[in-house]
Amino acid sequence: MSTPNAKKTGRRPGDSNSRDQIAGAARAQFAEVGYDRATIRGIAAAAGVDPALVIHFFGSKEALFSDVMALPGAVADALEGLAAGPRETIGRRLAELTVASLEDPATRMIVLGRLRSASSHPAAADLVRGLAGGDMVRLASALDVDRPELRATLVGTHVVGVVFARYIVGMEPVASLPPAELVELSAPVLQRYLTGPLDE
Amino acid sequence: MSTPNAKKTGRRPGDSNSRDQIAGAARAQFAEVGYDRATIRGIAAAAGVDPALVIHFFGSKEALFSDVMALPGAVADALEGLAAGPRETIGRRLAELTVASLEDPATRMIVLGRLRSASSHPAAADLVRGLAGGDMVRLASALDVDRPELRATLVGTHVVGVVFARYIVGMEPVASLPPAELVELSAPVLQRYLTGPLDE
Repeated sequence: MSTPNAKKTGRRPGDSNSRDQIAGAARAQFAEVGYDRATIRGIAAAAGVDPALVIHFFGSKEALFSDVMALPGAVADALEGLAAGPRETIGRRLAELTVASLEDPATRMIVLGRLRSASSHPAAADLVRGLAGGDMVRLASALDVDRPELRATLVGTHVVGVVFARYIVGMEPVASLPPAELVELSAPVLQRYLTGPLDE
Repeated sequence: MSTPNAKKTGRRPGDSNSRDQIAGAARAQFAEVGYDRATIRGIAAAAGVDPALVIHFFGSKEALFSDVMALPGAVADALEGLAAGPRETIGRRLAELTVASLEDPATRMIVLGRLRSASSHPAAADLVRGLAGGDMVRLASALDVDRPELRATLVGTHVVGVVFARYIVGMEPVASLPPAELVELSAPVLQRYLTGPLDE
């Protein structure tokens, strides 16, 4: 926060490498131990840099979390693009994107970091609420349905539940389902949440 | 573990009171900070007893967790009784039982304790897997459907997602939905998970 323009000024060759290494180390640590127990010092050590450089690039632990826990641009773009396709297949297409993102270790680390952090620390819960809200509410809003915020949050509950069972607790048989079968199981539920009636 | 018969031998008047106070303090602490950061010493202090008494009654932190994180007998019985009712309303009846249990602070504390613990500690994840597996697989098995373990786990993913959004992260509008509306939203999803086709 004290060096808001740090990213844009005084760059040396190698700066962006260090920044990426710090971001990667931070994601791994947030995913493994959660926001609360992650430390600037530990993240710096894992990235092989001085803790001061973490502050130089990111400002604070909170700002670092917000920065590295954003969805990768490609995933965020794909999510936004879903609304343009056929409405009757939105559930399947969202299921495919979600499962593919979760099976990719880089994106999975972000989702696990959000979840582990939100359940261990109220400030992280605030951050996660903001991040998740933005990701999914935009999609639901673009579909021109009633109650887009509720629909977006319901999609979030489905994803969180699957992540918890499959990647955090390892609850069988969900933990070892082939990705294609997880898509089959998720598609109708997501379709209902996004475009279906909200009760029976 | 070293005093397996402690519950049954040498009872003095007041023993069961102390035991209940320890169990209550343990549930509260597991729900608030998770298994990993909960301590016998902290639980004893909250219950107003000596740490040795916690060990006397429960044996170890792990045994204490398994004991106090079991569903209350009334909820476990109600869950088991659901299978006897009309199959076409199982989703609604399970939704009603789940929402009522979560709105009850005592049961909610158990569910939050399981969730917070499972996401912070692998040993707790093992315990949670065992507990959750038992609770729900019995119900699915009683329904005489294909793949009861998968169905039970899918029900678990729904409940976990709702608990996370509503009680841990406070994600609106799910966080402040009236309980009756949460039942409406959950019933068709749970019906599908328990008796419907598993894909579309």
